Amino acid sequence: MKIILLSGGSGKRLWPVSNNARSKQFVRVLPSPAGDVESMVQRVVRQIREAGLGCDVTIATGAAQRGVIEAQLGKGVDIVTEPERRDTFPAIALSTSYLALEKGCGDDEVVVVMPCDPFTDEGYFSTIGRMAEAVEAGDGDLVLMGICPTYASSKFGYVVPQEGEAGKPVMRVAGFTEKPTEERAAELIKSGALWNGGVFAFRLGYMKAITARYVQAGSFAEVRSRYGELPKISFDYEVAEKARSIAVLPFSGVWRDLGTWNTLADELPGHCIGNAVVDNPECGSQVVNQLGLPLLCIGTSNLIVAASPDGILVADKEHCEQLKTFVDKLPQEPRYEEFGWGNRRVVDATDGTETSHMTVFQGKTAKFCEEGHNCVLTVLSGHGIINIAGSGTNELSAGDVVKVAKSAMYEITASTLLQLIEVRL
Amino acid sequence: MKIILLSGGSGKRLWPVSNNARSKQFVRVLPSPAGDVESMVQRVVRQIREAGLGCDVTIATGAAQRGVIEAQLGKGVDIVTEPERRDTFPAIALSTSYLALEKGCGDDEVVVVMPCDPFTDEGYFSTIGRMAEAVEAGDGDLVLMGICPTYASSKFGYVVPQEGEAGKPVMRVAGFTEKPTEERAAELIKSGALWNGGVFAFRLGYMKAITARYVQAGSFAEVRSRYGELPKISFDYEVAEKARSIAVLPFSGVWRDLGTWNTLADELPGHCIGNAVVDNPECGSQVVNQLGLPLLCIGTSNLIVAASPDGILVADKEHCEQLKTFVDKLPQEPRYEEFGWGNRRVVDATDGTETSHMTVFQGKTAKFCEEGHNCVLTVLSGHGIINIAGSGTNELSAGDVVKVAKSAMYEITASTLLQLIEVRL
Repeated sequence: MKIILLSGGSGKRLWPVSNNARSKQFVRVLPSPAGDVESMVQRVVRQIREAGLGCDVTIATGAAQRGVIEAQLGKGVDIVTEPERRDTFPAIALSTSYLALEKGCGDDEVVVVMPCDPFTDEGYFSTIGRMAEAVEAGDGDLVLMGICPTYASSKFGYVVPQEGEAGKPVMRVAGFTEKPTEERAAELIKSGALWNGGVFAFRLGYMKAITARYVQAGSFAEVRSRYGELPKISFDYEVAEKARSIAVLPFSGVWRDLGTWNTLADELPGHCIGNAVVDNPECGSQVVNQLGLPLLCIGTSNLIVAASPDGILVADKEHCEQLKTFVDKLPQEPRYEEFGWGNRRVVDATDGTETSHMTVFQGKTAKFCEEGHNCVLTVLSGHGIINIAGSGTNELSAGDVVKVAKSAMYEITASTLLQLIEVRL
Repeated sequence: MKIILLSGGSGKRLWPVSNNARSKQFVRVLPSPAGDVESMVQRVVRQIREAGLGCDVTIATGAAQRGVIEAQLGKGVDIVTEPERRDTFPAIALSTSYLALEKGCGDDEVVVVMPCDPFTDEGYFSTIGRMAEAVEAGDGDLVLMGICPTYASSKFGYVVPQEGEAGKPVMRVAGFTEKPTEERAAELIKSGALWNGGVFAFRLGYMKAITARYVQAGSFAEVRSRYGELPKISFDYEVAEKARSIAVLPFSGVWRDLGTWNTLADELPGHCIGNAVVDNPECGSQVVNQLGLPLLCIGTSNLIVAASPDGILVADKEHCEQLKTFVDKLPQEPRYEEFGWGNRRVVDATDGTETSHMTVFQGKTAKFCEEGHNCVLTVLSGHGIINIAGSGTNELSAGDVVKVAKSAMYEITASTLLQLIEVRL
């Protein structure tokens, strides 16, 4: 069994701690078992491992997210990057092609595709285990997870069981209804319909055959190079709605979308993350402070206060929904980015220059190409080496200053944790 | 006529935009006639000039404030710095010694001493003009301004007129009552007592005689060097309470202490200063953002949000009084400082290193001594020269990097506006 985690999205609803380089699933604010904090994607991968599903995890994502995934998950997962953003069908087709052509998985291999951002409990993962068993038992070409509805929502897609199936542990599916009115939703729920949780299980050969209608290729590299030939359509429309034999397994445990500050707030480990004081925590204000500066909340009630190198948010929890409209008008260039090798945080931007604090983790190598600007590096602490293409290698230690000319390629390898100030001119 | 402005105090109640290097009177948030913002001290000096009092202004202050005073008031005022912080009597004695011994003012010169931070209207300054006239007319050795009370406050000192004097334009004074109970305050007000506004007028010779009881000196430098011989006592106790002949002039116009965020908020020029958006300004939230980052307030009510390189405050306006308790626990090293030559803002502090953005104004010279740390300067923009003691002069322009060794003295002169990044190691 293989799991494909879909990791997409932008970060506007959790601004300023998420941004275009760090979508909401990478925001490290959830309590981890170690007493620290973890991100949604770290939580999901941890839960997969703890569930004992014994499976490899492949993450389907855009190229911009590779750095943060490596930073947060290390080398323990495979990453498949889409050459361009299309939709869920091509993204899943690309990942299943990777499993078939690059990892050598056979047609009988059970594959589970799931989103990386729902906040769930162990029951969610044991349901996934039973979905895989249902595929193996031949209960359907496609097996879905159906979330037991808690209200007549008009925002979700509904999975409608065949007559007489409602309430069974594995139900045959009659069809789908996308975002019904609330009245229609109430009727659907009465007839046993479930929310479509976006979790799909199937045999690899099933998806391979559908992909082959568009692209027949002998290598993963070829599928990737012909990615544009895959239609820009969702997996629901291209696969689920056309499938002849579909089953759904119900799940009724914790299932939350922590996609807004209001929903995320309930899961934060306390009232302050970072350098912050709330004088009256009993009044419900919560702070996430990713800046080095102290933050004080005095006499406030029911606020979310979030500060990062990208900006500062002060919002009444009940009004967080309105955030996106305002964030859309802000500059979208992220000022904090995580990479497999470390991270980079903009600390000053003046007249077209940009000064950043960079951290390179011990043993890691960071590669750069200074396009269009000269750059000055000052080592704050640690040891390492810098190699500038065409001008050789130098040792780095605290106090060293290196100038890098416009358009030069260079790489820095840290022999201990290395901290630098980079001025781009 | 000469005016002495007393400029003291720390900045805890307006944290984070005021700090130990920038007391509350230097916070630039009040609307100026030019449509810009100005500080309390800039406002007072502008009002003195607009009142046509035709007088020189001397500012009595601590050495730490010289830079910010030069930055905000230029060379148009004299600055007398106290060698150590004592109290208002020695500070005023030092300044009057400066007028007598350094500026050559005669004993008949009328001197008005006033605080630099009350928020007042034109009437306050015309009252000061009439106070000087009262001194010249011999109405008292000491002439005070009495603020017409608006409620029975137990926080102020009261000036009590002699019987039958209440209501006259110039009243003879019977005595003083410091911070009475509210009941006693109500009785005092009924009998015509006024709040002591801390504005005093007298002839220079009067103060010279009192000073001579402690220090007799032939030069201002000598008075300054013997500053410790002046008693640590307030002007009210040492001079006002002992004076034989005192008059008070009433003032009934605008007179506010903008010493807390709650009182300052009413005078801000709008709901946002700096890079900020409040989605519902009708609900009374106000923002002062001195960081380069965008700040969003969504759905909030009646908040003061203030952000500076020193920290971030989110406070309900009604609860601002509690701020000081929390600020006392924070590190007091200011991260933003203004000087006559420009300013310096800390943008990163890591493992004992400190990275700052420095601005040197055109034509100005900044002098430094890097005590205990090596330093790397990178020029972001502009032109100038740097002179490092013992190693000569170099031109500076964008992209130049200069290393300064531990304990070296150096100075930078800007031929155009010069912006630099300084890394202290």
